[in-house]
Amino acid sequence: MPLSEFELIERYFARGPVARGDVRLGVGDDAAVLAISAGHEAVAGLATVVLAGQPPARRDPRRVGHHVLALALSRLAATGAEPAWATLSITLPAADEAWLAGFRDGFSALAERFGVQLVGGDTTRGAGVVTVVAHGLVPRARALRCDGARAGESIYVTGSLGGCALAERPGQTLRDSMPRVGAGVALRDLASAAADIPCGLARGLTTILRASGLGATLQAASVPLEPALGGDPRSLGGWPGVLTSGGDLELCFTVTPARAAQAEAACAVAGARATRVGYVESASGLRCVGAQGERIPLEDMR
Amino acid sequence: MPLSEFELIERYFARGPVARGDVRLGVGDDAAVLAISAGHEAVAGLATVVLAGQPPARRDPRRVGHHVLALALSRLAATGAEPAWATLSITLPAADEAWLAGFRDGFSALAERFGVQLVGGDTTRGAGVVTVVAHGLVPRARALRCDGARAGESIYVTGSLGGCALAERPGQTLRDSMPRVGAGVALRDLASAAADIPCGLARGLTTILRASGLGATLQAASVPLEPALGGDPRSLGGWPGVLTSGGDLELCFTVTPARAAQAEAACAVAGARATRVGYVESASGLRCVGAQGERIPLEDMR
Repeated sequence: MPLSEFELIERYFARGPVARGDVRLGVGDDAAVLAISAGHEAVAGLATVVLAGQPPARRDPRRVGHHVLALALSRLAATGAEPAWATLSITLPAADEAWLAGFRDGFSALAERFGVQLVGGDTTRGAGVVTVVAHGLVPRARALRCDGARAGESIYVTGSLGGCALAERPGQTLRDSMPRVGAGVALRDLASAAADIPCGLARGLTTILRASGLGATLQAASVPLEPALGGDPRSLGGWPGVLTSGGDLELCFTVTPARAAQAEAACAVAGARATRVGYVESASGLRCVGAQGERIPLEDMR
Repeated sequence: MPLSEFELIERYFARGPVARGDVRLGVGDDAAVLAISAGHEAVAGLATVVLAGQPPARRDPRRVGHHVLALALSRLAATGAEPAWATLSITLPAADEAWLAGFRDGFSALAERFGVQLVGGDTTRGAGVVTVVAHGLVPRARALRCDGARAGESIYVTGSLGGCALAERPGQTLRDSMPRVGAGVALRDLASAAADIPCGLARGLTTILRASGLGATLQAASVPLEPALGGDPRSLGGWPGVLTSGGDLELCFTVTPARAAQAEAACAVAGARATRVGYVESASGLRCVGAQGERIPLEDMR
């Protein structure tokens, strides 16, 4: 059931803010054709936002446009890729022009910031769902991976945690979070493994640990909290709540002790403070300990 | 609202039938990393299927899995690309294992046929929507485009039209249509422009005409009808119905008179009979004429 696909995509997205020289065919053609610069590999990161599932603070179409692209770019960031292009699928109950214009504004502002050109789109009729695939480039064999962690390495997270969960509460102001694209690029030759944490730090770290066949201990007292929480995690359900709450566009990475200081400095240059929050161990599973070494139970992280 | 993303994608899709050597990172990592062979450009084609919008004949999950990938591959085919990888976003009201297993079977069988490896996926909770981005490769600067048609060229369509619309009627049997991947590759250096026709021949051809700044005349009597129609378009609403009914995974292309025979032969070798159905003209707009030269009005093709 096309929703006047041709017209809508043309009207709202054909002339976006970014025009890259490496786009051979873009919006309006059947498929995008993209020149990959020599010595690079292509990276594709996917994000889907279900409109009915969004908290009230996120339902504004401009925010949805920002958010879905930011999530996809965050996936790219976890590989150290530089963003380049995106494709967009919009399913809406009706051709709501005000909604589309708002969505376009949020999407395009973020796309412009990171030099991302929209190269393909599709609109269909149905309950609201938006899917973005962000495409990027990474120098050959230098992509960050999930499976490179080793026992004894330090675990870091960029920025702070809990800001997204806090902002989605009634009466709070939601900021437009920015994906850690610069930090991802800066970590390419430093981190041993990396993951984004759209479903919380515990889940993102578990991706690394499973892929690497290892376990870890998180030190809750080191976890950088959103400043508005005043250092107290209780309003988000304590440390388990903070570590399993999603939405923060941060990166989790592992690094050898010898490279830790360099990785911290590289993230700082990219505008993303990186904080050591634990260490990788041989014993599988994810443990969390408090300031006095007491065990803090987390939800099942399987 | 993730729908146990990790587990579902792992269980149903991590070990698909195709394992390509050019996939550096695939399902399970944050983003896919793909090696692009030298001298090639990357192609991305998008398809979204809204489950609630499917006719009864298409609601079987195995058919949905086939159909959404086939639509995305058809978009690639219109550029002459060779398929290589796909990403998949599934939004479902609940983690319906029987549905997912059926979907996977349909998706994987088609993926295997064309050597496509699933390299990324996401599952979310919401009204049923499935989006696939198919990725492929095309030799540099040789992609088929929409904008290359010239006045005086012939217009061709592969296969036959109306089979999909007919099959979706009650009591009919729906076949799994195959995207015209081989024909697209074969037409790379022969067709002046090409498009797929998911929303009907008239719409697909209009994409070419608009991009090329031209018009055309379609000769209805030449249009190849699905054999089961017995040469009579009336059960689909006459020629306007046939020309505007969607779902047929065919390609429409334009070709100079000098190359027409060669293009027909190339399609035949690829298993796709190509039929001349009209000609490109300078005057903008799409006209349709019957066997006696009478004008057949089409719906607004804007």
